[in-house]
Amino acid sequence: MAEPSIYVIEKVSPTLKVMYSVKNVVYSGETKHQKVDIVETEDYGLALLLDGLMQSSEIDENIYHECLVHPTLLAHPRPRRVLVVGGGEGSTIREVEKHNVVEEITMVDLDGELIELVKKYIPWSTKAFQDKRLKLYIKEGRSFLEEQPDNRYDVIIMDVTDPVKGGPAEKLYTLEFYQLAYRKLSEDGMIVTQASSISHTPSIFLSIVKTLSQVFPKTCYYGCYIKSFLSIWGFAVGSKNTLPVNLEADEVDRILKQRTINNLKFYSGEIHKAIFKLVDAYLKFYSGEAKIIRD
Amino acid sequence: MAEPSIYVIEKVSPTLKVMYSVKNVVYSGETKHQKVDIVETEDYGLALLLDGLMQSSEIDENIYHECLVHPTLLAHPRPRRVLVVGGGEGSTIREVEKHNVVEEITMVDLDGELIELVKKYIPWSTKAFQDKRLKLYIKEGRSFLEEQPDNRYDVIIMDVTDPVKGGPAEKLYTLEFYQLAYRKLSEDGMIVTQASSISHTPSIFLSIVKTLSQVFPKTCYYGCYIKSFLSIWGFAVGSKNTLPVNLEADEVDRILKQRTINNLKFYSGEIHKAIFKLVDAYLKFYSGEAKIIRD
Amino acid sequence: MAEPSIYVIEKVSPTLKVMYSVKNVVYSGETKHQKVDIVETEDYGLALLLDGLMQSSEIDENIYHECLVHPTLLAHPRPRRVLVVGGGEGSTIREVEKHNVVEEITMVDLDGELIELVKKYIPWSTKAFQDKRLKLYIKEGRSFLEEQPDNRYDVIIMDVTDPVKGGPAEKLYTLEFYQLAYRKLSEDGMIVTQASSISHTPSIFLSIVKTLSQVFPKTCYYGCYIKSFLSIWGFAVGSKNTLPVNLEADEVDRILKQRTINNLKFYSGEIHKAIFKLVDAYLKFYSGEAKIIRD
Amino acid sequence: MAEPSIYVIEKVSPTLKVMYSVKNVVYSGETKHQKVDIVETEDYGLALLLDGLMQSSEIDENIYHECLVHPTLLAHPRPRRVLVVGGGEGSTIREVEKHNVVEEITMVDLDGELIELVKKYIPWSTKAFQDKRLKLYIKEGRSFLEEQPDNRYDVIIMDVTDPVKGGPAEKLYTLEFYQLAYRKLSEDGMIVTQASSISHTPSIFLSIVKTLSQVFPKTCYYGCYIKSFLSIWGFAVGSKNTLPVNLEADEVDRILKQRTINNLKFYSGEIHKAIFKLVDAYLKFYSGEAKIIRD
Repeated sequence: MAEPSIYVIEKVSPTLKVMYSVKNVVYSGETKHQKVDIVETEDYGLALLLDGLMQSSEIDENIYHECLVHPTLLAHPRPRRVLVVGGGEGSTIREVEKHNVVEEITMVDLDGELIELVKKYIPWSTKAFQDKRLKLYIKEGRSFLEEQPDNRYDVIIMDVTDPVKGGPAEKLYTLEFYQLAYRKLSEDGMIVTQASSISHTPSIFLSIVKTLSQVFPKTCYYGCYIKSFLSIWGFAVGSKNTLPVNLEADEVDRILKQRTINNLKFYSGEIHKAIFKLVDAYLKFYSGEAKIIRD
Repeated sequence: MAEPSIYVIEKVSPTLKVMYSVKNVVYSGETKHQKVDIVETEDYGLALLLDGLMQSSEIDENIYHECLVHPTLLAHPRPRRVLVVGGGEGSTIREVEKHNVVEEITMVDLDGELIELVKKYIPWSTKAFQDKRLKLYIKEGRSFLEEQPDNRYDVIIMDVTDPVKGGPAEKLYTLEFYQLAYRKLSEDGMIVTQASSISHTPSIFLSIVKTLSQVFPKTCYYGCYIKSFLSIWGFAVGSKNTLPVNLEADEVDRILKQRTINNLKFYSGEIHKAIFKLVDAYLKFYSGEAKIIRD
Repeated sequence: MAEPSIYVIEKVSPTLKVMYSVKNVVYSGETKHQKVDIVETEDYGLALLLDGLMQSSEIDENIYHECLVHPTLLAHPRPRRVLVVGGGEGSTIREVEKHNVVEEITMVDLDGELIELVKKYIPWSTKAFQDKRLKLYIKEGRSFLEEQPDNRYDVIIMDVTDPVKGGPAEKLYTLEFYQLAYRKLSEDGMIVTQASSISHTPSIFLSIVKTLSQVFPKTCYYGCYIKSFLSIWGFAVGSKNTLPVNLEADEVDRILKQRTINNLKFYSGEIHKAIFKLVDAYLKFYSGEAKIIRD
Repeated sequence: MAEPSIYVIEKVSPTLKVMYSVKNVVYSGETKHQKVDIVETEDYGLALLLDGLMQSSEIDENIYHECLVHPTLLAHPRPRRVLVVGGGEGSTIREVEKHNVVEEITMVDLDGELIELVKKYIPWSTKAFQDKRLKLYIKEGRSFLEEQPDNRYDVIIMDVTDPVKGGPAEKLYTLEFYQLAYRKLSEDGMIVTQASSISHTPSIFLSIVKTLSQVFPKTCYYGCYIKSFLSIWGFAVGSKNTLPVNLEADEVDRILKQRTINNLKFYSGEIHKAIFKLVDAYLKFYSGEAKIIRD
C-alpha cells in the first residue's frame, strides 16, 4: 500500500500529537458549541472528533461505552431512573437501554446540532434514540440538574469532554457539581464519570478521583485500553453505598444474565476484574498531581 | 478560527515535510500508474497530488504553467508543431493553445485514468481538451517519441513528475532521452522541461541542466517561486538555436502582442527578465551536485 | 508551558504516526546495523530508538522487560541455562539475573556498537553487564544458535526488533528458526518472544503465534499496555511442557518469593492473571490475518 | 540516507505547518521574553527559532539581512545615524556596519539573554558587536525611541518579530509607532521594516504597508524568497524623501562601490530591480486584507 497523504493531526497533550490517515471527510464544520469532524479513517473506521479530539470510533466505541455504563449499573441494586449527561453520540444510552430494570432514561446534551449530525452520519447508535424509556433534553447539563427534584436519580452517567479551561464541560467535574449530583441522587445513588486518560493526563484523572472522594463516602476507579485514544482510559465512580470494585467476576456474569444482557462485545465478569486490577499497577508509572477541582 | 484537524502531509524531501489543512477530500484513489488525491485545501484551494506530491493548485497553477510554456514558445521563431509530454492536468496545453502560430499540438500522457479524473474534478483546464489542434495519445512518452518521424516537432514541452528511481518519469530526463528528443526536433527545435525544485532539490535541478547541455548546443534555465511547492521551481531549456534567456523584456511583450496573447496572470516581459536574473543569485545558497543522468 | 518545537516523528504503522517532544538529543547516528537515536523526551524521559522506532524508555521499560522475562522463567520448573537473543539495551538480562536459580546467561546481540552506546548513555541497565553468570557474544543470533549443541538451553528469550522485510531480525521469527530453537532447547525447554503490537500490527502478532504453534506442542500469548509504544504489546511463548498461562496468581507470588525476587515494579501474581485474560478480549477488536512465517 | 527521526515542527500559519529534520539541539530554553531554540538542521544548517518560529538560518540569513538593510541605506543620500530596533542576532548591524558613511549605530533590543545566547552559540555575527560605532541598549524599543531627541536618526531599521497579539513586538507596527518614528527621523529620514510573509500572511504584509503609508509621504515595498521561511518575505519602507524603488541597477552598483562594499552574497544592482518587480506579480495570487494597525 502506498503511504497515505491525508491525516487527522490530533493533539493528545501539549507534548504528544498523533497523525492517522483519513480516507474520506464525511463532515467537517462547527456547531454553536464545538468543532465537529466526522471522518473515515484507515485505523479506526468511521470516527467522531469534537474540537479536534477523538471521541469515538467504529472499531472500539463498544469498549469505551460498555466500560462506562455497565460496572456501575450492575453494582447498583435497583437502577430504575438513570440520567445521562452528554453522550450526544447515542452509544451511552444504547448501553443503558440494555438493562431491563431501568424504567426511565433522561439524557441531557448541550448540542442539539451535534445530535442531528450523529443521527445523519454515524450509524451505530441511531436506534438508541427511539427507546420509549428515553427523554432527551437539549440543555446545559448542570443547570438542568439544578432544576430537578432532589433524590430524583438512581444513577448519573457523565459522558462529556474533559475538563478543559473554557471548554463546554468545565463545570461538570467540580466539587460543587458533585455536591449537586449527590443531592439529586436517591438513597443508594451512584455517579460514574469518564475521567480522562490515565496514561497521558494522569493529573486530570487523579484530580477527578480526588474531587469525587470529597463528596461521596465511597469511590473507586478503573481503566481500560482504547486504541483510538492510544491510552489507558479512566473511569471514576462515586457512591452512597455499593461500589463496582467489590463485584466478583461471577456476580457480574450472574447479574448480566438476570438482566438478559447477552450482546456485549468486550465487557464480562473476567474483564471486570482485570480492568480494576491493572489500573493501580499502571498508575505507578505515570506521575501526576491530584488537586480538588472547584468552580 | 479553530485550528483545523485534517491535513495533507507531504514529503518535500527526506528531511522536510509540510502539513496543510484540508477542507474536503474530493477524490482519493489509485490509477494503474499512480496514487491520486484531489483535495480542497485552505491555503491553495483545490489541489492535485500525485503519489503524495503537490502537482498543481488553484491559487498558483497559472504561475507554473505560464512559466513552463511561454518563454520557450516565444523564443522559438515559428513554433508550428508542439509536443507536450505529460501535462495530464490539461493546463500545459491550455497555455500552448494561446499561441495562434501553433498549428498542431500533440499531447502524450501515460495515465488515461488520471485525465478522466481531471476532467471530472478539476475545472480549470477542461476546455483545453476541446481545441481542434490537439491530438491526445494515452501512451508512455518515450516509446511514443521513438515511433515519430525525425525532425517532427518544433518544440517539446516536458511536464512530467521528477526523475525518481522507479517512478513513471525516470527515463524522461536521461542523456539518451535528450538525444532522442534532439533527433525528433526540427532545425530550430527547442525542448523545455520542468526541472524540480531549485531550492529544495538542487542536485536534481543541476543534473537536468548538465545532462541537457551534453546534447544541445545551447541551454539556459530559470525559476520562480510557487507557493504550493514552497520552493523556487526550476525550468531548463535545450535549443538548437535561439534561447529565451536572450529575449529582452520589450521583445517578450511585443511577441505576446503579435500572437494576441493578453490573458496571462503572471508572466510578462518584466517578469521574464526577473525570473532569469534571480536564479543564479539563489543557486549560490543551495549546494547540490550536478551529475549526468543516464538510462 | 509554551508548546514545544522539537519532536520525534515515529511511524508506528503505515497509517499512524506519532510526534512527541524532545528536550535534548543525547546521541543520533548510525551503527553498521541500524540507526540509533537516544533522546530525552517530555513524555517518556530518556528513550532509545532503533531505525526510528521506540525501543525502550525510562518511564516504562520495566513493564516491557518484566513482562517479557518473568512469566516464562517462573513457568519453567528449573531454568538453569538461559539464552537471550538481542536485548542490546541490557534490561532483559537484568531481569533474568533476578532469578537465583539461573546459573548461566548467554546473550548474543548483532550490534556491538549499540551495546557500547547503551553503556555510555543509558543508565538503567549498565550494571547488568557485570553479572558473573553472563557471557556476551557479538554475533548474528541465528547462526550463533546453529553452532550450539542440541538441548543446550532451558529458556530462550527473543528480544529483537519486529520481523520487517530486509530488517536485521527477519529470520528470527520463522518456522525454520523455531525448529532450530526447538532442537537447542532441553527437555522442558521454553521460548518466549516479543511479538509486536497486538493493537496496531495484529497480523504480525497473530502470525508469530501461529508460526510458533506449528513447532511447539504448547503455546500461549499475552500482552500489556506500554505507553511509550501507545499499544497493547504482545508476547508469545512456545513450550515443550509447562506454560505460564496455567500459573495461578498465588503460584506466581510464591515462586517469586522462593527465588527472592522482591524488586519488581509492575509484575505480580495478580497482574499475571490480568495480562493473560485481557488479550483475547482486545483481539476481537483488531482484525489481522495469521500466516505462517517462513524463511 | 535513512529517514531522520527528529524534527522541528513549525506552525507557519494556522493552516500550514512544516517539519524539518534536526541533527542536534544546541540550546532549548526560555528567556524572560521568549522561547529560544538553537538547532542544527539538515536543510538550513544552524538555525535560531524564537517562540517556535524560524528567525534565521546559516544557509540564507544573508539573503534576509542584506535585503533588509541595503536598499534603504543606499537610497538615503547620507545615512550617518542609524537606529536598529531588534536584530538581536547581530546580523542586521553587521550589514549596517559595511556602510562606511554610517558614523553611529544604535541598537536597542528587549532581550539581553537572547543576545548572550547568540554570542555564545551563533558564530556568524559575533564580531558585529565589537564595532566601535555601535551602542547597544537592552530596552523595549518603543519606549527607548520616545526618550530620544526629535530628528535624531537618518535611518531606522525594524528587525523584530511579527505583530502577533500579545507578542513582544505588537506595538512596533502601529500607526502611533510610525508617527513616533517620523518625529525621531531627520529631514530625509527613512524607516524600513521586515513585513512578514507576502505569500503566507499577505494580510499582515498589506496592513503594514498601508499603515506606513498613512504616516510617510512616500512608501514602497519589495520581497524575496527565503528558503528557511519557505516564503516570499516582505519588506516595507517609509520615507520623507527618497525611495529605494527608484534606484536603477547601475546606481545601486555605483553606490556600493563608492562605499567600498564588495562582500555581499546575494544583493546587487540587478537583484535590486528583480526583487521590486516580482512582488506585485506575486501579490495578485495571495489574497489578503489591508487594515490600518493601531495601538
